[in-house]
Amino acid sequence: MTSVPSEPAAPQSAADGADGTTWVYDFARGSREMRDLLGGKGANVAEMTRVLGAERVPAGFTITTAACVAYLRAEPRGFPAGLVEEVRAALLRLEATTGRGLGDARDPLLVSVRSGSPVSMPGMMDTVLNLGLTDVSVLGLAERTGNERFAWDSYRRLVQMYGNVVRGVASDLFEREIARIKEDRGASLDTDLDAAALRELTASFQRIYREQTGDPFPQDPRVQLDLAIRAVFESWEGDRALHYRRIHGMSDDMGTAVNVQQMVFGNKGPTSGSGVAFSRDEMTGEPEPSGDFLIDAQGEDVVSGVRNTSSLADLADPLPEAHDLLLDVLGRLERHYGDMQDVEFTIEEGRLFLLQTRSAKRPAQAAVRFAVDAVAEGLLTREAALLTIDAGSLDALLHKTIDPAFDFEALAHGVAASPGAAKGAIVFTAHDAVESAAQGVDCILVRQFTEAEDVAGFHAARGIITSEGGKASHAALVARGMGRPCVAGASALEIDVRAGEVRLQATGEVVARAGDPIALDGSTGAITTQDVPLVEPPENANFEEVLRWADAMRRLGVRANADTPDDARRAREFGAEGIGLCRTEHMFMATDRQPKMRAMILATGLEDRRAALDALLPLQQRDFEGLFEAMAGLPVTIRLLDPPLHEFLPDRVDLELAAARGEGDPALLERVIALSETNPMLGTRGSRLGILHPEIYEMQCHAIFRAARAVRERDGEAPHVEVMLPLIAYERELELMRALVLRVAAQESFVRGEDFMVGTMIELPRACLLADHIATMADFFSFGTNDLTQTTLGFSRDDIEAALLVPYLDGEVFDRSPFETIDTPGVGELVKMGGWLGRKMKPDLQLGICGEHGGDPDSIEFFHRNGLDYVSCSPFRVPVARVAAGQAAAREHRAD
Amino acid sequence: MTSVPSEPAAPQSAADGADGTTWVYDFARGSREMRDLLGGKGANVAEMTRVLGAERVPAGFTITTAACVAYLRAEPRGFPAGLVEEVRAALLRLEATTGRGLGDARDPLLVSVRSGSPVSMPGMMDTVLNLGLTDVSVLGLAERTGNERFAWDSYRRLVQMYGNVVRGVASDLFEREIARIKEDRGASLDTDLDAAALRELTASFQRIYREQTGDPFPQDPRVQLDLAIRAVFESWEGDRALHYRRIHGMSDDMGTAVNVQQMVFGNKGPTSGSGVAFSRDEMTGEPEPSGDFLIDAQGEDVVSGVRNTSSLADLADPLPEAHDLLLDVLGRLERHYGDMQDVEFTIEEGRLFLLQTRSAKRPAQAAVRFAVDAVAEGLLTREAALLTIDAGSLDALLHKTIDPAFDFEALAHGVAASPGAAKGAIVFTAHDAVESAAQGVDCILVRQFTEAEDVAGFHAARGIITSEGGKASHAALVARGMGRPCVAGASALEIDVRAGEVRLQATGEVVARAGDPIALDGSTGAITTQDVPLVEPPENANFEEVLRWADAMRRLGVRANADTPDDARRAREFGAEGIGLCRTEHMFMATDRQPKMRAMILATGLEDRRAALDALLPLQQRDFEGLFEAMAGLPVTIRLLDPPLHEFLPDRVDLELAAARGEGDPALLERVIALSETNPMLGTRGSRLGILHPEIYEMQCHAIFRAARAVRERDGEAPHVEVMLPLIAYERELELMRALVLRVAAQESFVRGEDFMVGTMIELPRACLLADHIATMADFFSFGTNDLTQTTLGFSRDDIEAALLVPYLDGEVFDRSPFETIDTPGVGELVKMGGWLGRKMKPDLQLGICGEHGGDPDSIEFFHRNGLDYVSCSPFRVPVARVAAGQAAAREHRAD
Repeated sequence: MTSVPSEPAAPQSAADGADGTTWVYDFARGSREMRDLLGGKGANVAEMTRVLGAERVPAGFTITTAACVAYLRAEPRGFPAGLVEEVRAALLRLEATTGRGLGDARDPLLVSVRSGSPVSMPGMMDTVLNLGLTDVSVLGLAERTGNERFAWDSYRRLVQMYGNVVRGVASDLFEREIARIKEDRGASLDTDLDAAALRELTASFQRIYREQTGDPFPQDPRVQLDLAIRAVFESWEGDRALHYRRIHGMSDDMGTAVNVQQMVFGNKGPTSGSGVAFSRDEMTGEPEPSGDFLIDAQGEDVVSGVRNTSSLADLADPLPEAHDLLLDVLGRLERHYGDMQDVEFTIEEGRLFLLQTRSAKRPAQAAVRFAVDAVAEGLLTREAALLTIDAGSLDALLHKTIDPAFDFEALAHGVAASPGAAKGAIVFTAHDAVESAAQGVDCILVRQFTEAEDVAGFHAARGIITSEGGKASHAALVARGMGRPCVAGASALEIDVRAGEVRLQATGEVVARAGDPIALDGSTGAITTQDVPLVEPPENANFEEVLRWADAMRRLGVRANADTPDDARRAREFGAEGIGLCRTEHMFMATDRQPKMRAMILATGLEDRRAALDALLPLQQRDFEGLFEAMAGLPVTIRLLDPPLHEFLPDRVDLELAAARGEGDPALLERVIALSETNPMLGTRGSRLGILHPEIYEMQCHAIFRAARAVRERDGEAPHVEVMLPLIAYERELELMRALVLRVAAQESFVRGEDFMVGTMIELPRACLLADHIATMADFFSFGTNDLTQTTLGFSRDDIEAALLVPYLDGEVFDRSPFETIDTPGVGELVKMGGWLGRKMKPDLQLGICGEHGGDPDSIEFFHRNGLDYVSCSPFRVPVARVAAGQAAAREHRAD
Repeated sequence: MTSVPSEPAAPQSAADGADGTTWVYDFARGSREMRDLLGGKGANVAEMTRVLGAERVPAGFTITTAACVAYLRAEPRGFPAGLVEEVRAALLRLEATTGRGLGDARDPLLVSVRSGSPVSMPGMMDTVLNLGLTDVSVLGLAERTGNERFAWDSYRRLVQMYGNVVRGVASDLFEREIARIKEDRGASLDTDLDAAALRELTASFQRIYREQTGDPFPQDPRVQLDLAIRAVFESWEGDRALHYRRIHGMSDDMGTAVNVQQMVFGNKGPTSGSGVAFSRDEMTGEPEPSGDFLIDAQGEDVVSGVRNTSSLADLADPLPEAHDLLLDVLGRLERHYGDMQDVEFTIEEGRLFLLQTRSAKRPAQAAVRFAVDAVAEGLLTREAALLTIDAGSLDALLHKTIDPAFDFEALAHGVAASPGAAKGAIVFTAHDAVESAAQGVDCILVRQFTEAEDVAGFHAARGIITSEGGKASHAALVARGMGRPCVAGASALEIDVRAGEVRLQATGEVVARAGDPIALDGSTGAITTQDVPLVEPPENANFEEVLRWADAMRRLGVRANADTPDDARRAREFGAEGIGLCRTEHMFMATDRQPKMRAMILATGLEDRRAALDALLPLQQRDFEGLFEAMAGLPVTIRLLDPPLHEFLPDRVDLELAAARGEGDPALLERVIALSETNPMLGTRGSRLGILHPEIYEMQCHAIFRAARAVRERDGEAPHVEVMLPLIAYERELELMRALVLRVAAQESFVRGEDFMVGTMIELPRACLLADHIATMADFFSFGTNDLTQTTLGFSRDDIEAALLVPYLDGEVFDRSPFETIDTPGVGELVKMGGWLGRKMKPDLQLGICGEHGGDPDSIEFFHRNGLDYVSCSPFRVPVARVAAGQAAAREHRAD
């Protein structure tokens, strides 16, 4: 059953197929441009072969996607004419190149078989390794490697993988057999099994294979290969793959390629080894290659961490040639790909092979360092360098962290909801947070979840921890907006506000009480009760440089969502070009204002309400003056009151309980009941409030215009005021509210167009559908994609994140929360429609977006492509948005 | 200052304008086809003149809309060339025709001036009456009528109307003057003022006019006319009119016409009179003219009810000729317009004038009687006859009413939320309703508002009264669905469930307690504590005939929303062609099932839950068997569980209060808190439940297929099963749930396509936008326009109806609740998009609609035009929907 090259190997000619089509390409003949024909994996290995030469990459060949399509279209399914011959010829060339024969009894060639479609896709066939082993060649492998155990372990893995992947034998049948043999032999780990045990296991696996498939395990390696190729082709039509293509709108006509590659072994003795390497330091980006390796080991040993690896520099000692060659290869690959590379290598008996290269994942400081160095070295243009950065990771550079040098034990891990680290004494209510801050004690607000009335506590606390909710929970959103670190959804903790205790969910053990120290890292999700040191992020000149490039490239403006002068100043330091959203309701949450706001809401007549509003007016005016001064020379978009009034009142349940005890204010409870809503998100809020209670919006407009006048008179520069009306569904709503704004403006001697603009949020599907009508009443649109996502998808953000996010990710309904990255085919389509209709009616209509998506790089790309004027995001996301906007422009420029 | 015809009157020639354009048309020259040029009012009076002859309609002329447009386009604005001359000529002809002169000192011609655009529109100029009176001609009028008081009253009205309407003098200035003079003279009513007082008032009005406008009241009637015409033209550009046209998408280029018409007087003595008349009996539709009149009176005296009118037949005695002529005229007008007419007439000194004719408003029984008679008489085709009916009024023919012969005093009036009358003992809870019904005592459920857990009480009660909510409140929707009479939002009542009292809101007086009798009429909104007799609606052969016509014409199928075999049978009696929506959750609301449903929800593990579901399965199966049998041969669409689970649990506040008292089940409260949602409408419901808890949907599917099999085996006919998945946003959700349905179907040996269909509700904007993708997974779509309206508009139905409906109607944001009639430019656009995209992908996709809009005639017209296959509505709306669908087809046919 041995096989040796029976024909002289000849270089592959240009067109081998019977009808002139080439079905098979040796790696040396492909390139990364041939992705459609060779698939992603085939194109990449070919590219690496081309760059490094055939001797550095294990040899092999790729059967094209076209062959797959031809196979699937044939009736009955089958290889197209010429394919069998081409595969045979390619295999002969591979045997000639490697000097080994498939199935050879002395020194067998082993190959891997992998699928590889043009677009990576789950559901395709998994890898089969060690193909070529048979009852005969396994002996050759044992002899050649001097390692009988290794040979039988390789063989039993082939039978297992082949049985499962090619013939669909259930994995657990094999796993059960392993368990049985381990029990028989008193072995606790797989590695405790010796060669004899593994030989026995192989025999058992072959029996299982025969029982399950009705066929013996194939002893002809060419049959093994033939069946494996067919299995890859068939997997293109598998349920999961079909499904994946359907939900991603991908064509079924692409087909998948099949890659057949020589296996190399790093475990053939002291001149063999395996490792991973980076073309630069993967943590810092310094221009010094780094990595880890193990002598006499396979790649999986390096990754598994069972043995302690050595650092790349130490490779120079045992294997100086391979070491120097590897450094040279890293440099060549980095220059070729124009990005920092992460490679897998194997040294087989002194000979270096590269198995894979890809762009290196790197933390933010390494990313900006590489980008700046690459431009300085002439490796990349600024555009290309900018595009090597993962914009989303950058805000790690702006926040405090727990000292990386300090080891601590985490109490729990939650969702990394708002970056940065913080520590302080535990408080359970906004009230306690404010008191604690007043006494100069740093505190952390710890709650099950948060609501609008907790916002005063956000201001006062250093950080926020919740046991419920995710990245888009109220706590996460507000914390990100204020730049407060937040860990949300730490479900291992049970937070009992009434008892004033934090307990472990699992055991009920009390781990902390009010006043106890606690710390969190909102960039990692870690929570600890240890006293961990926090460190400031260092100034980063590379980041500053990258931001300058991005600013020069981008077309999108970047504004910030900011509600206070402090936020506004911080946003401006981060490079914000204005305020895209000032949520005036947050001004009423401050402790000194809540009573006035409540008095306004509880007022029984218009007179009383006006009196309460008169008390609020000077406070609002002062807020606005601060904002205008902080943003001098830049636009400030002020949204009039948006949330339903009951958000400013105490919780109904608390009041009912108090009433049952004969405590509390019955009038307050009555009003809370009257104002309570089944679905507050869809209730009496936004401009609906303005229509029902015009006096509230009137007060706010007076405050805005008086503040603008005061600042103009004081500083000599007029603020750029944009008054924004929320939650418009009908043009008429906007008309009524715009008339109100213009009426107050006239009373304050302000002129629309000259002194200010009036526009609207576009945050309901109807507003998008009728944007042309609405545009006649608006100087600008600002897409409120948070609420637009809620209504378009029928998802209440507060409810859905907790209940559905995980099952929906698991069920592949979506691959990211639609509140994090905009749902382009649904919500995005409405944004496009709204923008297009609005500009059709009014070509100079200003278009912005002020939802959470304004700080998300993928969403920013979408907004750039669809012609928006600016994005607005929380202050700490401004640098991220600047980079993402620059990247969007750079990407478009390169595509042109 | 007198004026007499100074030129011989000549008939109007065809083209009078200097440039060949005719700016002015005598009534005798127009017709109803000339609406665009003459406006609606001008075209109608011309048509009436054409039909009845010039001697029967007060003479006059119309200045065209084209003249208005020319006037407004001129810079500066002004009459186009030739218009002044044409008006003068028309006025001369009018003087000649009437034999009176404008401003004449002895027998003056008085005219009215009215605007009239092609489409009726609020905000246009109001009417000016009595134009032509001056200080001189008022004396002539007094002399000619022998009624000095009448003359001065007419004159002061002219000054007041003219001042207000033409010159913009504030009405209250005049009103205050009237009040002052009444006080001076000790008069309490306007009618107490004598001629001298009115002469003084006229002088005061002229002074006010001069002070406010700076001009004296014009004493040249030609100047009066000239200014009035200009004022009408200008009003076309008034704010309200501009606004109205903008929100209704109407062109600004239409312009308005001006109608100048001779005034006639029914108060010139015993041979004069005024009245209203119908061409058939307005209450019954019997072919016998009816009406009311007064001798020596003006039209407003008839309408105001100050004097007791005589019935039309009695006119034959004093004025036999006018009487006979009127009957003849009524017949001619009815034949001409092809509809029952309602006319206003005046007899001036024996001469009959018709002032207006229009289609008569009529109750349902008169409408169907007229339609059937008109076809029998050969007056109308069936199509035309069908279109004379107001479909929305017809369900009055299907319900009990309070005996119209019985006089009663209403305790309060609320919204007529679900038609029909009912009476019984007051109960305040579903539990008491069920107990009462079990004891055979009719009861009425009386609550502030209702929720899902009250539904068992709806079944048990004869009718429902609420103090909150409107036509789209939960109570109204469920009551209409079940055909239970309901009066909602009776805000004069304070309903205190805990105290077991109904009090008057205004005084706090207790008017009824639990067990006391109460009655309601859901067709009128009346509530009474008197023992009123109820009467059944009589069989109506005319209605049956009309329904047969409609069925023969319509293209839309009509199904019913029905959840029980009783509902299904009733729906079938009303002509439903299947069930378009069976809400399976209602099956769990019955008292015997709530405990089992709760056990399922409270189950801590999957095992417990399955056990609870196993207990529910046979009950569901029995329900489905009943439905299938009631609908044998017709399709039954079953929607799997839709509402969030917490709707099946007790109210959280009640549980918290109980817990505070140390009562209740802590585990239940905990679960209620865990399941509670901020916005349940957008929460974990519909197919999201199916994804989280597949075992629930699996149970339901087993019940459906087993029921279908049982019925097939028992009755020999297989039910037409359509399984419907609710609340789909993503194609993948439907894919997962469809796979679940197919899996259970396979277990029960049911084959999709042969034995059943699987489809989805389309009720979220995203589903409409991606309907092509979703269609690949669906055999049918059913538009859930209730939820689609909620999400597209961002309106929570439960919250908005209470808070915003009235202010939004007042503010002209919309003219009907979008939950009653579909919002065509917003929600309707999404329905069109969804249908179009779905059929693009799958041309034979079945399209239905099962929201409340399925029973609304205007919405049905929209669904017909957009190619839906069927509408589904509550059983009692089925006949309405059949007629409306027939009308939609007839209208389309006539438009072809």
